[in-house]
Amino acid sequence: MRFSEYFPVFSLLSPEDQSMLLKRTVLRSIKKGTVLHRSDEDCLGLLLIQSGQLRAFISSEEGKEITVYRLFERDVCLFSASCIMKNIQFDLTITAEKDTEAWLIPLDVYKTLSARYAAVTNYTNELMSARFTEVMWLMEQILFQSFDKRLASFLLEESAIEGTSTLSLTHEKIASHLGTAREVVTRMLRYFQSEGAVRLSRGTIEIVDEKKLQAISLGR
Amino acid sequence: MRFSEYFPVFSLLSPEDQSMLLKRTVLRSIKKGTVLHRSDEDCLGLLLIQSGQLRAFISSEEGKEITVYRLFERDVCLFSASCIMKNIQFDLTITAEKDTEAWLIPLDVYKTLSARYAAVTNYTNELMSARFTEVMWLMEQILFQSFDKRLASFLLEESAIEGTSTLSLTHEKIASHLGTAREVVTRMLRYFQSEGAVRLSRGTIEIVDEKKLQAISLGR
Repeated sequence: MRFSEYFPVFSLLSPEDQSMLLKRTVLRSIKKGTVLHRSDEDCLGLLLIQSGQLRAFISSEEGKEITVYRLFERDVCLFSASCIMKNIQFDLTITAEKDTEAWLIPLDVYKTLSARYAAVTNYTNELMSARFTEVMWLMEQILFQSFDKRLASFLLEESAIEGTSTLSLTHEKIASHLGTAREVVTRMLRYFQSEGAVRLSRGTIEIVDEKKLQAISLGR
Repeated sequence: MRFSEYFPVFSLLSPEDQSMLLKRTVLRSIKKGTVLHRSDEDCLGLLLIQSGQLRAFISSEEGKEITVYRLFERDVCLFSASCIMKNIQFDLTITAEKDTEAWLIPLDVYKTLSARYAAVTNYTNELMSARFTEVMWLMEQILFQSFDKRLASFLLEESAIEGTSTLSLTHEKIASHLGTAREVVTRMLRYFQSEGAVRLSRGTIEIVDEKKLQAISLGR
């Protein structure tokens, strides 16, 4: 796939700006575990993901975490350019959850294009709306859904992302995704096991009854 | 104060668009309790608040609520124009918490100006960023702050908004602001009373030791 397919407003730019953009955009290889963004100080620019997986999360002073959203192939990471957005005053950490290849549109280039084209500003707007929607969804989950449903949904999602029913995930790590304590995860996983939905062993969680897990996630 | 002071991009519009905007904008009186927005179906346009108070909240199917943010004089209500924003897919209810006077820029006018001026799109962007920041702040509160701190902060905030230390608020109503159950509020208020920070009586909560409440809100 070509770069222009990752960046939908490309065709709306003038030929000069198109070639400037192509010249300045670089394909970056990001190793799993790399911290891409922590605050406005590391404001790289727009990342268009070609392959791999990024994770955006917030964390408390005590180190408690919750995954706010994840980005996959063809997604665009807007918050690595958060400093171009006035009024954004929160710190989201973005890390590579898998080895990732991404096009990077440097900050100054994206700024220039935003000033020149209403279409680019509109595009920023759309990206922000999409993330805002994800955050509101998460908030509703946290407030209005019981933890058994959230955990069941998370396991099914992980299984779909990884393409396997045997997940290599520590309870600690799950707790960091869902914004809770490890003990809460362990307790609920044991309950899922007693229900015959999963099988727990050292370092892995095997989904043995996907339908049952789905039923839990839907509150049936 | 004149309309142009409520809408900062006004000066960037052409004289024709300025007069079109002034002609089409209406000053609305909104009675306390009015539901201004519930979903994309009632997409009024941009509301610039001259006086009064609006409340934005989300609610569960079972009727549990949480206040996401409030808007006061000089604030702009963007979500009453949510349908102009692509990718916004969540329902926020907006109600008047007090009798409110607000300028309404009708939806089609705001749409026209957005298409014509990058500055207007940028302005939408800034408004959205500000709300996004408030939502992230709330999420951090819910996830990382204990309920005693949140309740103490809420009471102090209410007291500042209303300009009184005697609050006429039911425990039910506080629960709806903070996204919890009435019993949880009652229990914590009783604890605050036993600490000498508040005095409870039928239908009111009196702050008797503001410093103590502040200390609780800061976790000291």
